[in-house]
Amino acid sequence: MHMWMSELSQRSGVPVPTIKYYLREGLLLPGEAVRATRAIYDETHVSRLRLIRALVGVGGMSLARVRRVLETVDDEANDLHQVLAAAHEQLSPESSAEPSAESREQVAKLIRKRRWRVSPNGRHVTALAGALDDLAASGMPMPGEALATYADAAALVAGVDLAGMPGGTSDGSREGAATYAVTGTVLAAPVLLALRRLAHENLSTRRFTRRRRATAGAPAGRSR
Amino acid sequence: MHMWMSELSQRSGVPVPTIKYYLREGLLLPGEAVRATRAIYDETHVSRLRLIRALVGVGGMSLARVRRVLETVDDEANDLHQVLAAAHEQLSPESSAEPSAESREQVAKLIRKRRWRVSPNGRHVTALAGALDDLAASGMPMPGEALATYADAAALVAGVDLAGMPGGTSDGSREGAATYAVTGTVLAAPVLLALRRLAHENLSTRRFTRRRRATAGAPAGRSR
Repeated sequence: MHMWMSELSQRSGVPVPTIKYYLREGLLLPGEAVRATRAIYDETHVSRLRLIRALVGVGGMSLARVRRVLETVDDEANDLHQVLAAAHEQLSPESSAEPSAESREQVAKLIRKRRWRVSPNGRHVTALAGALDDLAASGMPMPGEALATYADAAALVAGVDLAGMPGGTSDGSREGAATYAVTGTVLAAPVLLALRRLAHENLSTRRFTRRRRATAGAPAGRSR
Repeated sequence: MHMWMSELSQRSGVPVPTIKYYLREGLLLPGEAVRATRAIYDETHVSRLRLIRALVGVGGMSLARVRRVLETVDDEANDLHQVLAAAHEQLSPESSAEPSAESREQVAKLIRKRRWRVSPNGRHVTALAGALDDLAASGMPMPGEALATYADAAALVAGVDLAGMPGGTSDGSREGAATYAVTGTVLAAPVLLALRRLAHENLSTRRFTRRRRATAGAPAGRSR
């Protein structure tokens, strides 16, 4: 299906001036020129714009990061896995501080034990080690068993995430899959965190109610 | 142990001008005046400042929110559970949009099914329903089974979180427990999210490597 820029804007949800900016920056390929000042666009433009919108909007990426993801998408030598890895990698913040050797070792041990096939010096590993450092610096280092349970929970959730992903490896769906992966990863995180707080609330209510009941019940014994 | 303000600043990690500001705002009780212009402080001031620092720094709360938490801490009629609930409640963002009836019902159903004892119209419920709305608006609504798995993972993690919490209900430890709960909840969230991305990376590597091997192996059969 071919369309003018106005329709491309409607279909992708990206305003016309922003589309023009992406065209100037080379993030979006030019349409097919049909007159001196007009061009027509197709479905590839729609999916490309949706991907950029997800990376910038939901993923909060800078255009420099978006460009790196798009380069991976455009390089035909990369398979879908490499495309997704690039999109994911750019989602993790570039940490300013180098994590401690202790946290790095704690993460390395976890990865070895689980036989996780991940890039051992990738950004996710650095992000995890840095988060462990932040806890330790606040006087509450995470014990190994707690980290193991966290890893169990993460694996549980990741399995569901990937099961829902459109699995196609054909070239046309690469952008759709990357859009899905970025949007899903980012937008589902608040679901997990809100559930964790609800679960805290539940456990805390149960723990303290039990204690109060036990105290109240002791001296009374008013049953018939 | 008694101390001057300079030592209070060192012990709590809060700069002197900030301490003076908290005193003026009434967030911190005045020290005991020993001269016209000097006062001494004690351990209750240290723990109060650590709590404020956790709420503002790690929790990212406004002073208005901090004040609400401290009022709950200071009201002797509240037990530790109510103190923790107040601290947690103020961590969840006040959502601008009212979640859809569908998402509210999906959350209510989950809570009923799990017999979670939580405030049915509390901020966590609203945050969760809002997060489900965001996913649906992006064209990837979370199916009930996926939400159930997310809830399993959240319950797993919450159990570990509460097991590590100092359990005292004596008045002196209320601030310590609240500090722990806020800091732990906020700082451990990035650990969970980084692990989730690592687990994604692992599953994705395995899925795509298997596919590649299967393709590569078919026509070859070069074993002796």
